[in-house]
Amino acid sequence: MTSTDSPLDFRSDTVTRPDEKMRRAMASAEVGDNVIDVDPTVKALEDRAAEMLGMPAALFTPSGTMANLIALSVHLQRGDRFLAPKGAHVLVNELGSAAWLAGGMPDPLEHDAGPGRPKPATLAAAIGARGGPYYTLRTTLLCLENTHNASGGAVIPPHEHAQLLATARQAGLRVHLDGARIWHAATALGLPPAALTVGVDTVSACFSKGLGAPVGSVIAGTASFIERARRMRQMLGGGIRQGGIIAAAALVALGRVGDLAEDHEKARKLAAGLADLGWDVNTPETNIVLARVADVSVTLESLRALGILAVPLGGRVRFIAHRDLSMADIEEALRRIKAGGHP
Amino acid sequence: MTSTDSPLDFRSDTVTRPDEKMRRAMASAEVGDNVIDVDPTVKALEDRAAEMLGMPAALFTPSGTMANLIALSVHLQRGDRFLAPKGAHVLVNELGSAAWLAGGMPDPLEHDAGPGRPKPATLAAAIGARGGPYYTLRTTLLCLENTHNASGGAVIPPHEHAQLLATARQAGLRVHLDGARIWHAATALGLPPAALTVGVDTVSACFSKGLGAPVGSVIAGTASFIERARRMRQMLGGGIRQGGIIAAAALVALGRVGDLAEDHEKARKLAAGLADLGWDVNTPETNIVLARVADVSVTLESLRALGILAVPLGGRVRFIAHRDLSMADIEEALRRIKAGGHP
Amino acid sequence: MTSTDSPLDFRSDTVTRPDEKMRRAMASAEVGDNVIDVDPTVKALEDRAAEMLGMPAALFTPSGTMANLIALSVHLQRGDRFLAPKGAHVLVNELGSAAWLAGGMPDPLEHDAGPGRPKPATLAAAIGARGGPYYTLRTTLLCLENTHNASGGAVIPPHEHAQLLATARQAGLRVHLDGARIWHAATALGLPPAALTVGVDTVSACFSKGLGAPVGSVIAGTASFIERARRMRQMLGGGIRQGGIIAAAALVALGRVGDLAEDHEKARKLAAGLADLGWDVNTPETNIVLARVADVSVTLESLRALGILAVPLGGRVRFIAHRDLSMADIEEALRRIKAGGHP
Amino acid sequence: MTSTDSPLDFRSDTVTRPDEKMRRAMASAEVGDNVIDVDPTVKALEDRAAEMLGMPAALFTPSGTMANLIALSVHLQRGDRFLAPKGAHVLVNELGSAAWLAGGMPDPLEHDAGPGRPKPATLAAAIGARGGPYYTLRTTLLCLENTHNASGGAVIPPHEHAQLLATARQAGLRVHLDGARIWHAATALGLPPAALTVGVDTVSACFSKGLGAPVGSVIAGTASFIERARRMRQMLGGGIRQGGIIAAAALVALGRVGDLAEDHEKARKLAAGLADLGWDVNTPETNIVLARVADVSVTLESLRALGILAVPLGGRVRFIAHRDLSMADIEEALRRIKAGGHP
Repeated sequence: MTSTDSPLDFRSDTVTRPDEKMRRAMASAEVGDNVIDVDPTVKALEDRAAEMLGMPAALFTPSGTMANLIALSVHLQRGDRFLAPKGAHVLVNELGSAAWLAGGMPDPLEHDAGPGRPKPATLAAAIGARGGPYYTLRTTLLCLENTHNASGGAVIPPHEHAQLLATARQAGLRVHLDGARIWHAATALGLPPAALTVGVDTVSACFSKGLGAPVGSVIAGTASFIERARRMRQMLGGGIRQGGIIAAAALVALGRVGDLAEDHEKARKLAAGLADLGWDVNTPETNIVLARVADVSVTLESLRALGILAVPLGGRVRFIAHRDLSMADIEEALRRIKAGGHP
Repeated sequence: MTSTDSPLDFRSDTVTRPDEKMRRAMASAEVGDNVIDVDPTVKALEDRAAEMLGMPAALFTPSGTMANLIALSVHLQRGDRFLAPKGAHVLVNELGSAAWLAGGMPDPLEHDAGPGRPKPATLAAAIGARGGPYYTLRTTLLCLENTHNASGGAVIPPHEHAQLLATARQAGLRVHLDGARIWHAATALGLPPAALTVGVDTVSACFSKGLGAPVGSVIAGTASFIERARRMRQMLGGGIRQGGIIAAAALVALGRVGDLAEDHEKARKLAAGLADLGWDVNTPETNIVLARVADVSVTLESLRALGILAVPLGGRVRFIAHRDLSMADIEEALRRIKAGGHP
Repeated sequence: MTSTDSPLDFRSDTVTRPDEKMRRAMASAEVGDNVIDVDPTVKALEDRAAEMLGMPAALFTPSGTMANLIALSVHLQRGDRFLAPKGAHVLVNELGSAAWLAGGMPDPLEHDAGPGRPKPATLAAAIGARGGPYYTLRTTLLCLENTHNASGGAVIPPHEHAQLLATARQAGLRVHLDGARIWHAATALGLPPAALTVGVDTVSACFSKGLGAPVGSVIAGTASFIERARRMRQMLGGGIRQGGIIAAAALVALGRVGDLAEDHEKARKLAAGLADLGWDVNTPETNIVLARVADVSVTLESLRALGILAVPLGGRVRFIAHRDLSMADIEEALRRIKAGGHP
Repeated sequence: MTSTDSPLDFRSDTVTRPDEKMRRAMASAEVGDNVIDVDPTVKALEDRAAEMLGMPAALFTPSGTMANLIALSVHLQRGDRFLAPKGAHVLVNELGSAAWLAGGMPDPLEHDAGPGRPKPATLAAAIGARGGPYYTLRTTLLCLENTHNASGGAVIPPHEHAQLLATARQAGLRVHLDGARIWHAATALGLPPAALTVGVDTVSACFSKGLGAPVGSVIAGTASFIERARRMRQMLGGGIRQGGIIAAAALVALGRVGDLAEDHEKARKLAAGLADLGWDVNTPETNIVLARVADVSVTLESLRALGILAVPLGGRVRFIAHRDLSMADIEEALRRIKAGGHP
């Protein structure tokens, strides 16, 4: 819960702070040197994450950006074309590292099946003909994102996931799933996360987005992929020593996926309240509310003056509900906005 | 002119062979070591090209791909976002080197102002807000392409060029123009090529596309850009020794821009003839004909059986008219297609 | 202290585990989202580290490899030559990222002034003539390493540091100091760490090598360097959220530099003991003992059988003394080796 | 032959100009579009070069720098360590592209077996232990250079080549041979060039160094290597269209390997003459003379004033004898130097 003195922070679900249980877990974590050896708590986290994600193995990373970067670096050969829905995190939120560092030539896909989701036919057309002479681009990877941040936390339904996977597989593509908020997608669908990774080669997932862990993500895949990923992580400087301290918090976080339903309810409440006040907002599928406003900067400034923090996203204002904002905080935010006479 | 025995080669205007005049020019060219010194014929070509393109200086390159690659490598910092119309050569025909080697994160623009041309508002929206915190993509470059190959040799009209340039400039972007076929655009518009480079930072142009030179392109820009470009050319292995041999042919080629009007007429004749036969074709603005067919591979195969060579391009069949195909060859091609009963 | 049951772990000073004080500090750390905001504990650590290192500003990184990688990536343009003493960490322990990712062409310097230290004249000769035509390599950076790991923790004396800096500066080179164990160098010299960074552009330092922090390093430089470094850190996936948890331990670690003198004494004791047993070892300047043996693999295996862990380094066996090994552990190790009849 | 008015150009054997026979060959060359098709003269050149080099296949490139760059790019994975004798062209004359573009971490080898040649034991020690944990550098490639430019055109004798190859092979390394002047090495040894490529994976060779062709080099290897090399060549912008023009000259050049013995004699004459005048010079094994002088810049300037052009190389003055300098030119050069009173 946030006091009325400090701002209500809707900027991201990454702003959550570890609670007492996490802090205790960190203080008492068993640790080891995870570069030259194995840190037992990191190992336990990787095993647990792999299991939940339905993948053979997993590797802890300091950030979701690094998890995706490792996946793309391992999957892509220099110049390989990869496909991702417009606005995907790997396209717009990772400072171009998918291109300059992982070496991929991105091609964004239209969301013509729904927010964050291309139609299988659109995917097939983008892949194009297989083969071709030596001087043609090779399309080798599809990156999906579930939930899709830039589309307001939109969920890919399992049958569409299956169709996209089939299309990609048939064309010989590998598939990486950016599952930073796969926990939210699973919660919204009432399915285990592993149900959302069927057929993918790799999936990344985040412990600090919504689940409350202070630091860390994971990249999961086959054992041989993880072997290459471990080397790439070391190259990038992501090999950390007694990582068990932060892994301990992430293990606690993995026990809290069930709590996310409340965040989704908070988001729906916020969206409904804003709509009542005349705002043009999405109907949140998960924990993200996107509002279309006349001038994003002006609105953000006005909100800030009311003690409400949000961020710009693709020409809209983004609010994220999370565990450090209570239902009462949502009500308070709506009260302030109403009082402030916005938008 | 092509004998009826050998195939009519519409695959590209790069297939043209140097004629006697070019061969004589090459055989008698004055040359020097252009890496450690200056080759006088290369220098003469660079000066002439710079003048025609209305740029301060120019640099000879072995290919148009290298000319574009050098420009992007010099313009872009690691991870910088650059914008280019969908299907641009730098996006789809250069094996992803704009990303993995030049380090750019591409974002394709819709052609909503016409074939190959985004609206200025579309460009402005894609550029987005300036500034932003340290963790946001930086958009620093616009790549235009005139004529636009994938759009069937479409021309950017000068007033649209001016609007796009103004939009880019206002947002602090640099502008590179892929002018591989700028000669064709200038011919179609009845303007000198320099009229089509107004305001750009760099322009590439090709001597072997339509003009008949065997080898070579040029990248033009400021003297200080060319200094950096020369180093990048050497890095890529594009520093050649007695380049004057091939530069001599390119100098002859530059005297033949006026001939391109005939190629445009041939393309229009081919398109009209195909339309008469029921084909779904574009109305060529320059020398490229794009035909929409039921099955590209099947059509290409059928054409090949008739002694007609074409290539696939973005799900269509592309024919290019050029100086080694006479008007009689166009008529012959149409005769064969009619006789063949296609499509 | 290590029980006689568990092995005596001399593999690295990175194997140390956080003690109770560090764990309490982590458990109670004030934190924030350090990507979109500022984590107050990370900020406090950065400020304290910058002060101790005598630099204007500093940036927390998950590892020393990333700290060095960021420095090199910011300092080097594509293809720039950089100089570093043979066996430097950036040359041999960072998986080639200095080359493929930071873009540098390394050239190793002989240690002709002493272990880990080139003579100024050797440096000057390696830099070579300034200027040169466009097709010549540009030497733009000197990387020093103090202490120098591969040379057995050798220290660069301040007057040699000053001469090397002067030589580099005169030739227009920037200077990066890999100070992963700068704390050890300062302790050995009886000087504050800031006395060892005079004139450098950037310095990296590690909290988990010898000081006992579980995770983290720092890269320090000017404010404008740090601005660029922050962006590069985000690109590499090193932007972490509530980093204050681990920064809290690093802050405790910074208070323990004074303890390192004991580790140096342990190393000297170990080396002396080994020499008494007929081993061919260095005289440790800091906490590293290097032993020349007939067959490194055989010796490591024999030691392991005695419950003593060490690692191979450049054809020798490396032992590192650290805070989790007591003086009694050193004695125990020597006892076991003597009993084992080695080498 | 050079008139006494124009300078005697010893800067490189790349300064040679194509003669009448080459010009006629170029003027009458059969050509085709070598990007989308096959240029018959380029193909003939590639076949002939492959045969002479004793390799299965070859690929024409615009420069030797690109030939080496392609080889390294295909052989190396990101961060792989490669070994090359100190001063190798790939280390010091290619603007660092072996590192930043091909992705290799270079490690230079001492010339302890003779100029340009490491001892097999030195090579073995540099390769180090095989295997090692995931965080260790991988050494995967040896680059030899025969003749070795920076060592004054030194030749690797076949038995040393064989020993180095055996050492590299045994350790699982691939081997690339920079054979820019392999023709000179073969001539000096009285062996066919193919005798000098035994066991290598790839070899580059140059048509414009000594043989008089205006432009071009070749990279040779297995058919599957060449397939990958063709794609990399296209990526780098080295795919040229009617390359047959310049390939025709290179074909003529290949018929002139026998002439190189004269250049070697010229170099010996020059070296002997300089020694008689008190210069400190090497005894040329091929066509390169290196002189140790008090001040390289001063000497080069003095020579220039006498109408003699040379270049600096690794702190010495380099003269190269070539087909555009006659024996009379050598005598004239010596006369001028004697008259000039140098050094």
